[in-house]
Amino acid sequence: MATASPSDWTKLVMVLIVVRCLMMSFVLEAAAAAEVTPWSPSRGGGGKESGGYQYCLSWRVMMVEANNANGWRAVPAPCVGYVWAYMSWGQYHLDVATVADQAAAYAAAIAPADDGRDAWVLDVDDTCLSNLLYYQAKQFGAYDPVAFKAWASRGICPGIPPIRQLFQTLKRRGFRIFLVSGRDEETFRASTAANLVAAGFSGYDRLILRGADHQRGESAVSFKSWVRRRLVEEEGYRIRGNVGDQWSDLQGHFAGDRVFKLPNPMYFVP
Amino acid sequence: MATASPSDWTKLVMVLIVVRCLMMSFVLEAAAAAEVTPWSPSRGGGGKESGGYQYCLSWRVMMVEANNANGWRAVPAPCVGYVWAYMSWGQYHLDVATVADQAAAYAAAIAPADDGRDAWVLDVDDTCLSNLLYYQAKQFGAYDPVAFKAWASRGICPGIPPIRQLFQTLKRRGFRIFLVSGRDEETFRASTAANLVAAGFSGYDRLILRGADHQRGESAVSFKSWVRRRLVEEEGYRIRGNVGDQWSDLQGHFAGDRVFKLPNPMYFVP
Repeated sequence: MATASPSDWTKLVMVLIVVRCLMMSFVLEAAAAAEVTPWSPSRGGGGKESGGYQYCLSWRVMMVEANNANGWRAVPAPCVGYVWAYMSWGQYHLDVATVADQAAAYAAAIAPADDGRDAWVLDVDDTCLSNLLYYQAKQFGAYDPVAFKAWASRGICPGIPPIRQLFQTLKRRGFRIFLVSGRDEETFRASTAANLVAAGFSGYDRLILRGADHQRGESAVSFKSWVRRRLVEEEGYRIRGNVGDQWSDLQGHFAGDRVFKLPNPMYFVP
Repeated sequence: MATASPSDWTKLVMVLIVVRCLMMSFVLEAAAAAEVTPWSPSRGGGGKESGGYQYCLSWRVMMVEANNANGWRAVPAPCVGYVWAYMSWGQYHLDVATVADQAAAYAAAIAPADDGRDAWVLDVDDTCLSNLLYYQAKQFGAYDPVAFKAWASRGICPGIPPIRQLFQTLKRRGFRIFLVSGRDEETFRASTAANLVAAGFSGYDRLILRGADHQRGESAVSFKSWVRRRLVEEEGYRIRGNVGDQWSDLQGHFAGDRVFKLPNPMYFVP
């Protein structure tokens, strides 16, 4: 048709608007499928009160991962939704994989000596084994020793895939692997050992838990420094790498030639 | 009207689609205005090649701010756009403010003694003074000493507002303030001192630059540790806080009672 009535033009414009809007829907949906959009843009801007994406991102990055908080008790209430989304929608897994890749590349550049004394130290909770299910159920609330004991005793924590892969790589390359955890020796030895095997972590050299001499009062930095000092000074190991989700895994004495900080915005261990 | 013809229903559905789509447009636009949307969702998912938001976020957080890279030469090419957006669209400024607030809260809980020996150490580049304009013009490329010299000699770096505010707070509370920078003493003393005044940083105790004895070969960790050791051991200062955008500002000896890591995904100083 060579000419169009005004009514036809109106219809054409309307169709174009619909097409454009539908395209926009597809962009939004594609972005959501690719997990690109922040967890809830409708929560508003950077505001602290609303738990805005910008505020919670800033909290996670600068307070938690860059360690400027230097201690925090629980996820800020406005950011519980943000942390849930961060842990569940792919960014957490990508962040873990990014660090694991970095650790594997570093390990690949070291040739372990024949004396069998080149070692790596790995933390257990939220390094090898994931407590995400537990913390999700607890809405990322403050530490609850009774509930955590019930959870950890079941020995059903899933393994964290990129760290399982790193673990296998380190083993294959001939490093000794020490798993060091603040979990109580008496309460958790059996369930933790069984959980590790079930989650694909077998063939490590030793699982070192917190014994009666290092009870609750002692910080993780102090306990883990003590463990590493013993490994280095008494047993002659060279700690080539140290992997943990808490800064307290990686600070203190004999921290290791390189330390690798995994993400964890769920809780803080002093 | 009690009944509607099929044609009316068609129109109604069409109007509803248009209204829904327009609302979606508003959500998108509101999100953009609030700087909530990632810099370019259309760049795709977490892919490294495409410089996806997830990949570049992971690089910034885990490699740069959590220091797992342990040294990097330049922003990864796929993330230049991401870093530009991060620095320009509000998240960087929020991150700086988050850390500055934390430092101010910590400072507020310390009462400086009457002996005038309670001190803070602040870095200069991208702590007090912003080089963002320079790095934007250089597309966040690798370090270029000639171009940087030309830029810094002009003495036109803008001050970073939340740190200027922290600086004023510390001064008002009676802390001594030492500005410590790896900038070369001979080349940059005059321009840096003038720039600091122009940017609102006046009334500090000393500006300590890198002299002839501490030239390029020496790492920032080593030079800055040497400066702090002198302040503490020879002059009797107590370094209560230390603020910098590089981990090398905050590591080494006499780092300070608390260290505060500001964000900087533009460059790395070893």
